[in-house]
Amino acid sequence: MSVGIVPGSFDPITLGHLDIVQRARGLFDEVIVGVATNHTKTPLLSVEERVRLIAGAVADLTNVRVMAVNGLLVDFAHSFGATVLVKGVRSARDLLTEDVQAQVNYELGAVETVFLPSRPGLAFLSSSIVVEMAANGANIASFVPDGVPDAVSEALAARRDAPTRTTG
Amino acid sequence: MSVGIVPGSFDPITLGHLDIVQRARGLFDEVIVGVATNHTKTPLLSVEERVRLIAGAVADLTNVRVMAVNGLLVDFAHSFGATVLVKGVRSARDLLTEDVQAQVNYELGAVETVFLPSRPGLAFLSSSIVVEMAANGANIASFVPDGVPDAVSEALAARRDAPTRTTG
Amino acid sequence: MSVGIVPGSFDPITLGHLDIVQRARGLFDEVIVGVATNHTKTPLLSVEERVRLIAGAVADLTNVRVMAVNGLLVDFAHSFGATVLVKGVRSARDLLTEDVQAQVNYELGAVETVFLPSRPGLAFLSSSIVVEMAANGANIASFVPDGVPDAVSEALAARRDAPTRTTG
Amino acid sequence: MSVGIVPGSFDPITLGHLDIVQRARGLFDEVIVGVATNHTKTPLLSVEERVRLIAGAVADLTNVRVMAVNGLLVDFAHSFGATVLVKGVRSARDLLTEDVQAQVNYELGAVETVFLPSRPGLAFLSSSIVVEMAANGANIASFVPDGVPDAVSEALAARRDAPTRTTG
Amino acid sequence: MSVGIVPGSFDPITLGHLDIVQRARGLFDEVIVGVATNHTKTPLLSVEERVRLIAGAVADLTNVRVMAVNGLLVDFAHSFGATVLVKGVRSARDLLTEDVQAQVNYELGAVETVFLPSRPGLAFLSSSIVVEMAANGANIASFVPDGVPDAVSEALAARRDAPTRTTG
Amino acid sequence: MSVGIVPGSFDPITLGHLDIVQRARGLFDEVIVGVATNHTKTPLLSVEERVRLIAGAVADLTNVRVMAVNGLLVDFAHSFGATVLVKGVRSARDLLTEDVQAQVNYELGAVETVFLPSRPGLAFLSSSIVVEMAANGANIASFVPDGVPDAVSEALAARRDAPTRTTG
Repeated sequence: MSVGIVPGSFDPITLGHLDIVQRARGLFDEVIVGVATNHTKTPLLSVEERVRLIAGAVADLTNVRVMAVNGLLVDFAHSFGATVLVKGVRSARDLLTEDVQAQVNYELGAVETVFLPSRPGLAFLSSSIVVEMAANGANIASFVPDGVPDAVSEALAARRDAPTRTTG
Repeated sequence: MSVGIVPGSFDPITLGHLDIVQRARGLFDEVIVGVATNHTKTPLLSVEERVRLIAGAVADLTNVRVMAVNGLLVDFAHSFGATVLVKGVRSARDLLTEDVQAQVNYELGAVETVFLPSRPGLAFLSSSIVVEMAANGANIASFVPDGVPDAVSEALAARRDAPTRTTG
Repeated sequence: MSVGIVPGSFDPITLGHLDIVQRARGLFDEVIVGVATNHTKTPLLSVEERVRLIAGAVADLTNVRVMAVNGLLVDFAHSFGATVLVKGVRSARDLLTEDVQAQVNYELGAVETVFLPSRPGLAFLSSSIVVEMAANGANIASFVPDGVPDAVSEALAARRDAPTRTTG
Repeated sequence: MSVGIVPGSFDPITLGHLDIVQRARGLFDEVIVGVATNHTKTPLLSVEERVRLIAGAVADLTNVRVMAVNGLLVDFAHSFGATVLVKGVRSARDLLTEDVQAQVNYELGAVETVFLPSRPGLAFLSSSIVVEMAANGANIASFVPDGVPDAVSEALAARRDAPTRTTG
Repeated sequence: MSVGIVPGSFDPITLGHLDIVQRARGLFDEVIVGVATNHTKTPLLSVEERVRLIAGAVADLTNVRVMAVNGLLVDFAHSFGATVLVKGVRSARDLLTEDVQAQVNYELGAVETVFLPSRPGLAFLSSSIVVEMAANGANIASFVPDGVPDAVSEALAARRDAPTRTTG
Repeated sequence: MSVGIVPGSFDPITLGHLDIVQRARGLFDEVIVGVATNHTKTPLLSVEERVRLIAGAVADLTNVRVMAVNGLLVDFAHSFGATVLVKGVRSARDLLTEDVQAQVNYELGAVETVFLPSRPGLAFLSSSIVVEMAANGANIASFVPDGVPDAVSEALAARRDAPTRTTG
């Protein structure tokens, strides 16, 4: 049985991410969404919250699971017998970044990466764009799965109220 | 009467920005420079300071106004009856970023974006390059309007003296 | 009265080109579509045919005219009192090419170029893609204005029958 | 049984192409190499010659077949029950071109395209680079499968002797 | 004594090329301009004409020689004891092409390539842009060395009069 | 005697950096590695530590020195009689960034920059990739010079233990 991994930060998941997950199902018997614990940036949403929101978005998709990735992505993939990662690429700029990550994962664990080009109407979407829109008061409901707008609003409100941050 | 918006962070304004403002005047009856309140990065200069420096730089240009943008840029544009934003693009890398912002603003408020290619001699200029040069002791007077060198120097000095910063 | 020029080869016109013409109308009082006589490639359609097809496509758009460009584009623009060209950019690759043309036209005649980013659903469209699809038997009716599919079919048939071509 | 198509001109096949075919075997039960009949450029090698050279290169790879593509690529894919194309991308420039082709094939026949990034040591290889090297007298044996150097040499010699070409 | 090669088609030489030659003199004791015999495109100017025009342009520059390249560029370089090529890069698009050529030359003959970024005011210049401008009647005297405008005009006139060309 | 500067943050040095230093030795009589004091990001390793690690890596390379850069890079270069910087470029994205820095240094001090394309097998390597790999538990010994893995491990451990950081 073939297994493909869709890795990402998903902070938060967008309809662009969800489209990649759905299309990955056409390539593998099982798809596992791997939610990265990012060591270099403070995420808006906790890993648990991000996993919960994705789980809600893929609840109707058979053969899709969601899990947090601890440690190296290649070890995560190997633990499920997976040797292929699936990444959406929205532009040439994305490719230049993802190409490097693909080679890192190939060097570290012989894990292959396949790229799916974003659907045109979704190519502008990213987690950071969605957060920026919400922070400026826009309604993001048409860009993200159910539950995400509320989670982002709450996290942004909590961030504004945090007394100890010095660089916001 | 046609109105065009030139949005940006302008932290600080450079001669590259000023060139875009001047060329935008050839496309619209009135040009409004919209100074973004940036939610994700701590600016070097306050919004008020940035507005003040731009106002000085465009004092001689008729039909140009400068204002801070609060909330969504599309709402700001609509409040002036504007449906077009003007952005300078210095390189293909700029386009990939601006293209996304353009689509966001079209999706959120049917606001169009037109791109003006930077003049070759100004294409290397950006706010962050100017700040980096000044932080390293370079004289930036030939890259920015009058008043900006002093404002940047003072802000850099204040930043160095700030006792509570932990990641500056 | 402001006049903008939308230049191109239009061999043939696509719905992507038509979208740029329509959006250019929001920027100028009058829009002139300038059909290039290309000196370096043999076009599929004659200049007259291309002008005729565009004229049909813009028949309902007030304040839009179509004309062949002979000689330098900057001279063509000046003859109508126009100092601004409008070009669609579909990708970073387009920008790198158009940026050069923009500077040429600025150097030769102080003519400015503004770029409009293609709408996502139209960004894959180009004259050459449409011709390639038609040459392989695809129905191109949903990608081009009325009249274009027949004109392209006839031109491709004529090209196949041409007895003297050695490199077609 | 899943079927993937690896389309291309393969004029001639290189070790870069062969690497993509081998990696595509990890994604599908069967892989079909589809050799394009190119309508817009005169190929160096005939379709039959190109199919023959690829067949030799993949003779040891089970579940790989080679066939000429006549008509639309999406019709070719459908005739084998395939809904996925596999393309190697060597750089951001490749992506910008392939992205467009991917959308064309999705629009015309709901056929998906997945991209595999070229292995670093093979990313400089292309059919045209190989032909250019051979035309300048270089030994191309380390860049292409067996049989290709002789076929290219003969075709280049024939091209030089052709009496009727005026632009070759 | 260090020797650097500046290779190119120079069809015709522009002020952008000349700037690269001058800057290459700061890196090597001797600079040799290598004029490629291009196997895949019909040049506008003969190799002899191109060499003659470059020789005129560099007549005042000591330690610069001009020669036609026959066969492989790496063999040409080796014959002068040179192991470094110098290429101007005008944009990211140039880099993607030149990067491939650099690796080819490294693979074929251990010849290194260094890139010099074009000066901003010259970055739009290329041989093909200059020819296109001249073909449309523009005065190209401010973009190319002395002698080039006349040579290009004569070659364009001869091309127009050629009775046997079918695709010019 | 010609002197070339290889500037960078080297936080930490990778085998990709070391390859550029070695190749720069073929272009200049003496090579000086200039370690930037970065004003905008908190480095993982102190300047002294970075200088020490590079010094160890180049100990066997004659005519190579390592020094910290204080103030403007152009002043640093001038103090050694150097007028040329050498930078590795791994991709088109790198070029777009480095091109700007090159022009800044030319404007500020008439210092030239030459670019060396990364060797394919090293092009994915960067300081940030190496740190990210190490932070996730990967063994980075095959990507960096001796001594670097231990230094990075210690610095990451110290960062995790720091009690006062608020933005990690």
